[in-house]
Amino acid sequence: MTRPATLPDPPYYSVVFASLRTPVDDGYSDTSELMFELVQQQPGFLAADSVRGADGLGITVAYFRDEESIRAWKAHAEHALAQKLGRERWYESYALHIGKVERAYRFDRE
Amino acid sequence: MTRPATLPDPPYYSVVFASLRTPVDDGYSDTSELMFELVQQQPGFLAADSVRGADGLGITVAYFRDEESIRAWKAHAEHALAQKLGRERWYESYALHIGKVERAYRFDRE
Repeated sequence: MTRPATLPDPPYYSVVFASLRTPVDDGYSDTSELMFELVQQQPGFLAADSVRGADGLGITVAYFRDEESIRAWKAHAEHALAQKLGRERWYESYALHIGKVERAYRFDRE
Repeated sequence: MTRPATLPDPPYYSVVFASLRTPVDDGYSDTSELMFELVQQQPGFLAADSVRGADGLGITVAYFRDEESIRAWKAHAEHALAQKLGRERWYESYALHIGKVERAYRFDRE
């Protein structure tokens, strides 16, 4: 069981990536796994939560220290290729929302 | 197939709610459905995306016009009761991240 990601105190930045998959795999699983490994090595990466539902809608929220880290990850060569293939093959639709988090709360059962 | 929510141009606010469920239903499904109906009637509510994975981790992202709308929804009487029951019964753990969205992108296959 995966708990929601643990973050340092705000402020930090959130990148919400909501997506609807096509039925095509064609490299998706491998690339998705690789991107998840790569993003965790990015300077300024803090944590991420990721879920995909049975109906094909998925939400990944990645948290970064600052906007510069997000720009660097967006421009990362392997990630840029994955983005291109995502539009060509893997996603029916996606939306990205980049926000500055000023408040956060957490609950953990004892 | 549900596409990611459509939003007006930024700025707006995002509330990321990531949660791990207990195995207990005990009113969860009904309350969850009711809260989803209620939040959509809140002044300032814009849209929401919600996914729960097979492993019990879920992410809901609700978008609001301003912080006042978020505060009003947090204090809404039926929602406040649902939050209390959530901590007592339904959630092993949850995290909330409230951010101001300044940039957003979208892709839709033609």
